[in-house]
Amino acid sequence: MVRIIDIRETTASMRADISNAYVNFSEMTTSVVAVVTDVVRDGRRVVGYGFNSNGRYAVGGLLRERFIPRIRHAAPEDLLDETGANLDPHRIWAVMMTGEKPGGHGERAVAVGTLDMALWDVVAKIAGRPLHRLLAERYRGGLADERVFVYAAGGYFQPGKGLAALQEEMRRYHDLGYTAVKMKIGGAPLADDLARIEAVLAIVGDGQALAVDANGRFDRDTALAYAEALAPYNLRWYEEAGDPSTTTSSRQWRRRTRHPWRPARTSSRCRTRATSSVMAGYAPIAISSNSTRSSATAWSNTCASWTCSARTSGRPGAASRTVATRWP
Amino acid sequence: MVRIIDIRETTASMRADISNAYVNFSEMTTSVVAVVTDVVRDGRRVVGYGFNSNGRYAVGGLLRERFIPRIRHAAPEDLLDETGANLDPHRIWAVMMTGEKPGGHGERAVAVGTLDMALWDVVAKIAGRPLHRLLAERYRGGLADERVFVYAAGGYFQPGKGLAALQEEMRRYHDLGYTAVKMKIGGAPLADDLARIEAVLAIVGDGQALAVDANGRFDRDTALAYAEALAPYNLRWYEEAGDPSTTTSSRQWRRRTRHPWRPARTSSRCRTRATSSVMAGYAPIAISSNSTRSSATAWSNTCASWTCSARTSGRPGAASRTVATRWP
Repeated sequence: MVRIIDIRETTASMRADISNAYVNFSEMTTSVVAVVTDVVRDGRRVVGYGFNSNGRYAVGGLLRERFIPRIRHAAPEDLLDETGANLDPHRIWAVMMTGEKPGGHGERAVAVGTLDMALWDVVAKIAGRPLHRLLAERYRGGLADERVFVYAAGGYFQPGKGLAALQEEMRRYHDLGYTAVKMKIGGAPLADDLARIEAVLAIVGDGQALAVDANGRFDRDTALAYAEALAPYNLRWYEEAGDPSTTTSSRQWRRRTRHPWRPARTSSRCRTRATSSVMAGYAPIAISSNSTRSSATAWSNTCASWTCSARTSGRPGAASRTVATRWP
Repeated sequence: MVRIIDIRETTASMRADISNAYVNFSEMTTSVVAVVTDVVRDGRRVVGYGFNSNGRYAVGGLLRERFIPRIRHAAPEDLLDETGANLDPHRIWAVMMTGEKPGGHGERAVAVGTLDMALWDVVAKIAGRPLHRLLAERYRGGLADERVFVYAAGGYFQPGKGLAALQEEMRRYHDLGYTAVKMKIGGAPLADDLARIEAVLAIVGDGQALAVDANGRFDRDTALAYAEALAPYNLRWYEEAGDPSTTTSSRQWRRRTRHPWRPARTSSRCRTRATSSVMAGYAPIAISSNSTRSSATAWSNTCASWTCSARTSGRPGAASRTVATRWP
């Protein structure tokens, strides 16, 4: 019978001198967790690792006060699958969410998702299978994607960063082998953003090699003004135009705009199963690494790809690498 | 120039042997904050107090790591109104939310709302005005409600609590002077809940003296089954039938059901301004004490009533007292 013998968590600094449309990363932190089991494989103790994507800060308080203690205090057999030979992330999710009110898409989902990531990691390691194959076997009839689309997410706003520095950054991604990049918009006026976009297009060539991300900055009118202005560039996608809570405005937007893209609802809005089901009606979903919970259950089909990406994109680079799967 | 000289926070146990449809309160905690100023009134230092309503646990980690430090590190003049003689909760809210991504309705809004409550408390004390009058003057042309509707929120599920104990509890509220009570449903099968409701109606008499709260427990079919079964009782309201994230199902429900009530969207769903504006289209909003942020800004009209309630309902009782203002 597998047992979790320890769960460790720590807060790591993600300090960087960059900004998106909302967040300055000078104080940014992330939670890192390790789920330690009593299983030994190839002479090494099996440990699962998880972290939360940057942008929402560490969630150490929640991990220490609620979610880790609930796993610790559970009967060990309540954490296992029916064979007893491996952990069951679904049953552990139920343990973690015991005593939790419905609703609340922010820190709580980040904390649970961080542990969920580590749990799926450890389950795959105990099973001796790459996680993308294990998930494909369980949820997708064994069909795993061996190749996934990855892109370099960068183009942040930085003090004194001009167009030349932006182009230099994008050239670096290109030299690393990326065929597509994403840049932040919304931290500058529209005209400036258009100049930034044109500068990047001069490097990457085709609009389909560039995506933009407003990080939820815009009200509806600004979002539409950007949509109009961006249309001629034929960009890959235009992400998080408005506040993630405003499904209504997104729906109106879809009705009003005739642009080639539909509003992209990203993982940052899809952190609960309820929200995921609401959002699923709206648009394609870009699954990124902070949506473990969604991807591991509601989005298990795409999760296989996400996981594959995590395993294939380990090369250190200046930008984090996320994956948009099955983008139309 | 007013200065905040300290902000203290602590976690208080709210441990109780009760449950609603989702949460067992045996581990429940709440954050309590005190905003200490350098102002002295009537020989006493002016301090504002806030706490978060029970059901969602303390948020000490977020308070200590993000929101209190941001206020502490801000330039003192950035926290003041234009006179410099009082604090400005709106400006302080902007300071607290610096570097925060949009979206995230759970713990973050609770943490900010807890501080927001203390800030409005201190602003009123510095102004030497009851808060309900101060808010009415600022946001409602001076029209303050001197009387508000209050009800006793109880009827929780407890081990071994039978109908007689439930009736005894409700009789106690009645003896305390309450003209309306609220009870939890959804922690038992429908038939059992109906027996509980009928037992309480035998005490309170009229259906308009009883509200029920499912705490977001039901899926759509169960919510509708309850709605059908509850209709003959002509209850005051039926609160949080489904998951707060599923606006779509709520909308469908409104379309499908012809019952006298509309789904009540409570404060637990209205913790960000964006959500509030989405929810405002749906139904009357019950403002409870954990929605300080919403009530203080988007819902300032109702907040005057909420505040009045906080000032008039100080009598200790077995149940927390919340206020439904302007219920149709």
